[in-house]
Amino acid sequence: MSNYVKLDINNGIGTVEFFTEQSNSLPGDILKKLADTITEAGNDPEIKVIILKSGGNRTFCAGASFDELMAVDSPENGKKFFMGFANVINAMRKCPKFIIGRLQGKAVGGGIGLAASVDYCFASKHSAIKLSELALGIGPFVVGPAIERKVGLSAMSQMAMNPDEFYDPKWAHQKGLFGKLYDDAAALDKAVNQLAEKLAAYNPEAMAELKKVFWEGTEHWDELLAQRAEMSGKLVLSEFTRNFIQKFKDK
Amino acid sequence: MSNYVKLDINNGIGTVEFFTEQSNSLPGDILKKLADTITEAGNDPEIKVIILKSGGNRTFCAGASFDELMAVDSPENGKKFFMGFANVINAMRKCPKFIIGRLQGKAVGGGIGLAASVDYCFASKHSAIKLSELALGIGPFVVGPAIERKVGLSAMSQMAMNPDEFYDPKWAHQKGLFGKLYDDAAALDKAVNQLAEKLAAYNPEAMAELKKVFWEGTEHWDELLAQRAEMSGKLVLSEFTRNFIQKFKDK
Amino acid sequence: MSNYVKLDINNGIGTVEFFTEQSNSLPGDILKKLADTITEAGNDPEIKVIILKSGGNRTFCAGASFDELMAVDSPENGKKFFMGFANVINAMRKCPKFIIGRLQGKAVGGGIGLAASVDYCFASKHSAIKLSELALGIGPFVVGPAIERKVGLSAMSQMAMNPDEFYDPKWAHQKGLFGKLYDDAAALDKAVNQLAEKLAAYNPEAMAELKKVFWEGTEHWDELLAQRAEMSGKLVLSEFTRNFIQKFKDK
Repeated sequence: MSNYVKLDINNGIGTVEFFTEQSNSLPGDILKKLADTITEAGNDPEIKVIILKSGGNRTFCAGASFDELMAVDSPENGKKFFMGFANVINAMRKCPKFIIGRLQGKAVGGGIGLAASVDYCFASKHSAIKLSELALGIGPFVVGPAIERKVGLSAMSQMAMNPDEFYDPKWAHQKGLFGKLYDDAAALDKAVNQLAEKLAAYNPEAMAELKKVFWEGTEHWDELLAQRAEMSGKLVLSEFTRNFIQKFKDK
Repeated sequence: MSNYVKLDINNGIGTVEFFTEQSNSLPGDILKKLADTITEAGNDPEIKVIILKSGGNRTFCAGASFDELMAVDSPENGKKFFMGFANVINAMRKCPKFIIGRLQGKAVGGGIGLAASVDYCFASKHSAIKLSELALGIGPFVVGPAIERKVGLSAMSQMAMNPDEFYDPKWAHQKGLFGKLYDDAAALDKAVNQLAEKLAAYNPEAMAELKKVFWEGTEHWDELLAQRAEMSGKLVLSEFTRNFIQKFKDK
Repeated sequence: MSNYVKLDINNGIGTVEFFTEQSNSLPGDILKKLADTITEAGNDPEIKVIILKSGGNRTFCAGASFDELMAVDSPENGKKFFMGFANVINAMRKCPKFIIGRLQGKAVGGGIGLAASVDYCFASKHSAIKLSELALGIGPFVVGPAIERKVGLSAMSQMAMNPDEFYDPKWAHQKGLFGKLYDDAAALDKAVNQLAEKLAAYNPEAMAELKKVFWEGTEHWDELLAQRAEMSGKLVLSEFTRNFIQKFKDK
């Protein structure tokens, strides 16, 4: 199966699903499609509430595409790549509708950024999370603000400083990243659909105002995340990251 | 027994108690009396610390008076009603003395706003909470800032998006809304009194400065909560809310 | 053994250790040395990551030196003393390197301020915490911002209003002050060293940028903590505190 982003509409519920062959890690073209599809769903009057999910039954999202990280050859290209994540987060932030996340499995790096940018996130008991950026010589700069907004500074900085450590779903639940945990995909889907159906029947005006309220204080994120993308784009060219990639290639 | 707000003063402890016959839900006149009484207690030099409680041994506060919500017939009247909650929260915020909350039972909607605006809240194991506004076609706009200040964005938004779900006292304790939980009213009262007596004996100057420090960054709430009251006042007239009320009346 | 602050450098890891004979409570000269040593370690190109620890195997830090608090005889001297804590916190905040905390035991008052100002804190199961300031007629004004930044307003204000209550390490862990807890000093040291070694090998540029990101929004703390030191310096001369000290002396 090749990479895709698709949007299904059913009874007022818009389901955005992305998939890539590399554990749902995200290259630039899929990031662009994802941002565009979220914006499209936000503007579609038929859609009252959005579900964000990924394909397959294992990893929710492995973060940035490693191939594309390796291919970065200038600070400009680096910034451009990381802007892909910034654009997805900003699309979710500005979307006038609630977005429900559905995590079937692990989220790594930028994948945690997606989970943190939905308005309510359901996860399975397989959804361990790892903020791996520092191990690659960069940092969770673009996704940091979204993660900190949901889990607070302590939990965000703890993950960032322990880039090879997986934090289990219970921890993520306790810190507020996940609203509820489920044992298997069937229970997870049932809960996601139940909430989506309820929300699709509530007052859209009230939900649009609530969405604004939830994101109050993030009006500067267009600029902030662009600065952060520049930071990551520069660091990805550092000697440390180049050596890391070289070792990885030599394997 | 008819509705009341009363203030008792004993050994430097001012106890503000409100009661209404509808599960301590709050109509405009009681909200006004409550705000005024808190301000009065704050200005009374005899009082060193304030306890906020409600009458009866069941629900702490069921939120806004449903009768008054139903009677709103213009955006101006709507705003005026919701300003009742804004004024209580602002009175608690500006009160130069610590306020201890005593929750014997459930808090719903605006009731959570009261619990979140005290400086330290004790609760019984019956004190489940529900942020029900969205189910009525409105949202927790006026009480949102006070709740988010105490429990963070994740927990506040989770409750707001699940307006028919009760969250148990342990959850509220874990999220920081309740400082401590007790098995029954006797244990609850003992703990509340113990803390009040201790605080009444500490340095009033130090407590007044600490109170300011706790509320730093909320200086704009007079305006913010007024905007929020306007938002709710408008939404309460929406078709969604009118239909909801009609269905309720038809029962 | 007399009071000291020392800096050891080993394989890129700079270990700052302080000790005083009064349960590691901090007089002005040790506070100054501590701030200077942290700044020195931050500037030393040999050092990639810093560990902050205290001597002895019991209390991590008992807060302000009681003798020096008692000796304060003017608001100016009071402010000067509390600026000692402000300067240590600001030195940790501005240090371009990650600081790992190692708590072998209790932290009281200003000691919690130190624990809250490291970037990641490991603690033993003996590390109960108490924010005792209000019992002395003052308040946790200087350390408050650092503590609130890590544990949030609810937990900070709960501790501040219960100045004679020890909160156990599990509570501090749940609130985000401690990243991980260990049963004994050996396990604690192993974990601290393991993280320090890993961090010492990561990209220093990325860590310096991350450190800035962690402390974003605290750029006004030079002024804020100075105002707070003035507040404490004034209150320490209040009748309440003078009586408290007199009673203590009479024992």
